[in-house]
Amino acid sequence: MDPAVSARPPGETARTQVRRLPNKAVTDRARVHRILDAGRIAHVAVVGDGSGRRRTPNPELDDPIQPYIVPVGYGRDGDRVLFHGSSASRLFRALAGGAPTCFTVTLLDGLVLARSAFESSMNYRSVMVLGRCTELTGPAKLAALEAISEHLLPGRWADIRPPSDKEIRATTVLALSLDECSAKLSDGDPDDDPADLDRPTWAGVVPVRTVLDPPQPSGDLRSGIPAPNYVKDWV
Amino acid sequence: MDPAVSARPPGETARTQVRRLPNKAVTDRARVHRILDAGRIAHVAVVGDGSGRRRTPNPELDDPIQPYIVPVGYGRDGDRVLFHGSSASRLFRALAGGAPTCFTVTLLDGLVLARSAFESSMNYRSVMVLGRCTELTGPAKLAALEAISEHLLPGRWADIRPPSDKEIRATTVLALSLDECSAKLSDGDPDDDPADLDRPTWAGVVPVRTVLDPPQPSGDLRSGIPAPNYVKDWV
Repeated sequence: MDPAVSARPPGETARTQVRRLPNKAVTDRARVHRILDAGRIAHVAVVGDGSGRRRTPNPELDDPIQPYIVPVGYGRDGDRVLFHGSSASRLFRALAGGAPTCFTVTLLDGLVLARSAFESSMNYRSVMVLGRCTELTGPAKLAALEAISEHLLPGRWADIRPPSDKEIRATTVLALSLDECSAKLSDGDPDDDPADLDRPTWAGVVPVRTVLDPPQPSGDLRSGIPAPNYVKDWV
Repeated sequence: MDPAVSARPPGETARTQVRRLPNKAVTDRARVHRILDAGRIAHVAVVGDGSGRRRTPNPELDDPIQPYIVPVGYGRDGDRVLFHGSSASRLFRALAGGAPTCFTVTLLDGLVLARSAFESSMNYRSVMVLGRCTELTGPAKLAALEAISEHLLPGRWADIRPPSDKEIRATTVLALSLDECSAKLSDGDPDDDPADLDRPTWAGVVPVRTVLDPPQPSGDLRSGIPAPNYVKDWV
């Protein structure tokens, strides 16, 4: 790993500047794209719940500083991440309304077994994006749904029934620019204190990987329909 | 899967009540424990950065409604989750100061290939905990560090150098009660619209699993030290 560090690279602000362990900062936008493209699930945070639209105030829900996190599948289109959720979700209403958000993708790559508790850690790649989402409509909304599907299920879109107008209305599709983002990457061997190197303790890394198992047909699949080649290619 | 649903089970409040797809709600506390015990990484959200402790106000950092997410390794002790971070981290200072937080664990179990775009989805297990953290000190702090280590690296604690006083001071250890939590679980076949079942499209699930590969010794490992049996047991 060679995470080049510069003071305030493009896309970084005081809010996304990597302060802890800055040697793990990744400043190359292409690398940010690669991390995003290797993930499937993002965690998105938002404060409150669009309570401005609630008819009756609810003190239990309207705490102005309570953050919520929602896990989402996502895709990427150039320098924007794309994700969707139910139009009826209060968190998606808040996001569509322009509430500040934090979008995070974390990929766990390994368990790092150092000789001390303090240096024991994990290898990972992560991206954090800050900003406010834009709600997509019209042709851009359908194109984003296809981009998300093709990120998560490459080759699938041409094979399935596209969303109906009613289904599209039931879905909120959001785009978030990578204008303000940061990434971190940790890999390689444990970084033990020199004084610990002579301990008779094994040290190293246990790699962690996400794997796809062979496709399992649905119980209601009509006989004679084989699993498509594009699915076999994922495994 | 049989996620029983009841109105407001123990530990659930209006804030954690599962509103979207409530049929996916998991109300059994033992099941919440099992989901937490199967994960390694949590995403923790907090608003702001403990700016009350900043000597000079910084408008770029002090937006009161900007949430941040930090990924953490974690452990569990009964009905509390435990995690740690650097005492110098502004987000950990905010959490230790009692800022409201959201702690989320998401396990991706499968890609769900329905016959329509709208019903295409993912199988997952997730837990969301809301609350304010308690900072641990003294013997409870060391015990929590051991619990986190034993969750992530079972059997390792007895083999490594315990943290020094200086290392313990550099670490903030937090506990968050499961008093206010919810869980969701989605598994099984795609849930296609009956009108789509006669499409000549394959449908089913591609299972997703996290696997550990064989341990890789550190480049600075002294010769003759074998990988411990407890590590081999993880794979």
